[in-house]
Amino acid sequence: MVKLENMKNISLSDSVINLDHGDPTAYEEYWRKIGDRCTVTIRGCDLMSYFSDVNNMCWFLEPTLAEAIKELHDAVGNAATEDRYIVVGTGSTQLCQAAVHALSSLAGTQPVSVVAAAPYYSTYVEETTYVRSGMYKWEGDAWGFDKKGPYIELVTSPNNPDGTIRETVVNRPDDDEGKVIHDFAYYWPHYTPITRRWALVKDKEVAKKMVEYITVNSIGVSKESQIRTAKILKVLKETCKSETENFFEYGHEMMKNRWEKLRGVVKESDVFSLPKYPEAYCNFFGKTLGSYPAFAWLGTKEETDLVNELRRRKVMSRAGERCGSDKKHVRVSMLSHEDVFNVFLERLANMKLIKSIDL
Amino acid sequence: MVKLENMKNISLSDSVINLDHGDPTAYEEYWRKIGDRCTVTIRGCDLMSYFSDVNNMCWFLEPTLAEAIKELHDAVGNAATEDRYIVVGTGSTQLCQAAVHALSSLAGTQPVSVVAAAPYYSTYVEETTYVRSGMYKWEGDAWGFDKKGPYIELVTSPNNPDGTIRETVVNRPDDDEGKVIHDFAYYWPHYTPITRRWALVKDKEVAKKMVEYITVNSIGVSKESQIRTAKILKVLKETCKSETENFFEYGHEMMKNRWEKLRGVVKESDVFSLPKYPEAYCNFFGKTLGSYPAFAWLGTKEETDLVNELRRRKVMSRAGERCGSDKKHVRVSMLSHEDVFNVFLERLANMKLIKSIDL
Repeated sequence: MVKLENMKNISLSDSVINLDHGDPTAYEEYWRKIGDRCTVTIRGCDLMSYFSDVNNMCWFLEPTLAEAIKELHDAVGNAATEDRYIVVGTGSTQLCQAAVHALSSLAGTQPVSVVAAAPYYSTYVEETTYVRSGMYKWEGDAWGFDKKGPYIELVTSPNNPDGTIRETVVNRPDDDEGKVIHDFAYYWPHYTPITRRWALVKDKEVAKKMVEYITVNSIGVSKESQIRTAKILKVLKETCKSETENFFEYGHEMMKNRWEKLRGVVKESDVFSLPKYPEAYCNFFGKTLGSYPAFAWLGTKEETDLVNELRRRKVMSRAGERCGSDKKHVRVSMLSHEDVFNVFLERLANMKLIKSIDL
Repeated sequence: MVKLENMKNISLSDSVINLDHGDPTAYEEYWRKIGDRCTVTIRGCDLMSYFSDVNNMCWFLEPTLAEAIKELHDAVGNAATEDRYIVVGTGSTQLCQAAVHALSSLAGTQPVSVVAAAPYYSTYVEETTYVRSGMYKWEGDAWGFDKKGPYIELVTSPNNPDGTIRETVVNRPDDDEGKVIHDFAYYWPHYTPITRRWALVKDKEVAKKMVEYITVNSIGVSKESQIRTAKILKVLKETCKSETENFFEYGHEMMKNRWEKLRGVVKESDVFSLPKYPEAYCNFFGKTLGSYPAFAWLGTKEETDLVNELRRRKVMSRAGERCGSDKKHVRVSMLSHEDVFNVFLERLANMKLIKSIDL
């Protein structure tokens, strides 16, 4: 057993570790402990039709998933679900594009400007440019945006990549041409205190246009994924008040632990920096807590290309420049497997030493 | 039992039946008979990562699915898989858009014209126009297309909506600006004789661009769907030489039976028409067979708006005009549940009578 562990570490300590993507493998152990309660079984004769609910405007939304989404949001207190519309997508990527498409198609003039305050989620750039749509146009950083006409501001909170709590920044007075898409993908209590509720899709016409987009884009969303997600969300809700099985408690402890370790390494070094987050009262946990984001926005005090420096040490991260920031910052996933995370910490600690020798 | 059947028929006989979409519920009985062999069980801790195969260019393709696709094509003989690239999509809808995107992005000048010979799959129109891309432009019917510059011809065979076997129709001599996307979604032996093999993605650069499209469009494809599909394709392959469990034999008999009934009703009427299909030697079944397409391309000899006539009789179908054809044609799904199909036949037979009275 010890020998195997050692071998694994030796092999891992030599390989490239990929922290570029937010691949959420960190929670695997939790799901193992939960065991069969999240297991789904799908027979060959199940889910035959394209249609999930012909009476719902979002005809490809499985009713059990709609119910599970509402119940979990109600239990966690992070979203208002009454009199709102639920549109399901193949991840937040397709949903975000559906929302940009919907708001643009309802705008008086096109192309509609799309902006986000830097540092922003780098994939927004690709999502809004890859099809070269005439309906909307990526205009980059919302700070300093001054173009006339209709615009959409993407507000990500907690922000990806830097974990800060965000509000709109364009805020033109008396301007009804500005629309906002809130991306709250990481607004869950293991990452950040839940201080207020946000909302699902408010406007029926917007929801309808989003459904139209997804209908043409991929004729709906995988039913197998929806059925599985519904079951998992149901278990999350059932256990969210439990002392031993609460996923958010588990996730909170894990993330807090990782952040403390990372802050320890950064503190020991003279070359790295991390954002500081204010504490806030979390309505879900019922106490004042810090933020432990899914990504670390790692900076360096030196004039260096940090993404390349890390790559030389076989750590893949996302370049700050892709997020509208600079070479001195990178986004690092905090959601890897535990052993990968520990190798990252080791390499980071060693980089400090090498840096010192370089100087 | 009889009473229940009657009640069901009474209720169904009064309701709107939707044959607009190709919703393939017809095969439910087959899958029930196959029983547990196609059942998949997915645990909470399974399929944690975004990545399916980091060594594959199509990193979101589950290896078991890639293998099952190749094995089934080899067994059926409808596609060449050696030295080809497999790109998985959320249905043929996303894949078709990925292919149009890929070929356009590799073209010398843009927008690239996109055409298909009428009558064509109506959704091609929406797929190539809804995002108002500057990379390609829908130019409609390939018959009569004479615009200069790069173009993509969509060739659907057997064709949706009319079931005919298709080749390219633009065919410019010495023109390297023309590209072809073959849509063989219905090229399976229960619909049409398998006379030759077509190919998966031939060009590596095209496959790469398709993967890039799907990566930005939806960060890959549902793993749950892929795992389930792999299992189902494996069973299709294992049973495809069986005398009692062969899906294609079952599907062929069912489709043949439905087409014979439909042709019977049409023959009795003086107002409707259907295409005739030549027989051909099917390499899979090893004998000469007819075509029994997934859609009926129903025509009327009268000057009438057929989609509205059918709607008045509570039969939803797809208007011929949406397929680049005329008001005298509609596309009707042949893949509904058996009882729905029988109600359709009844209403069609009655329409003939009403028509006669009208005259």
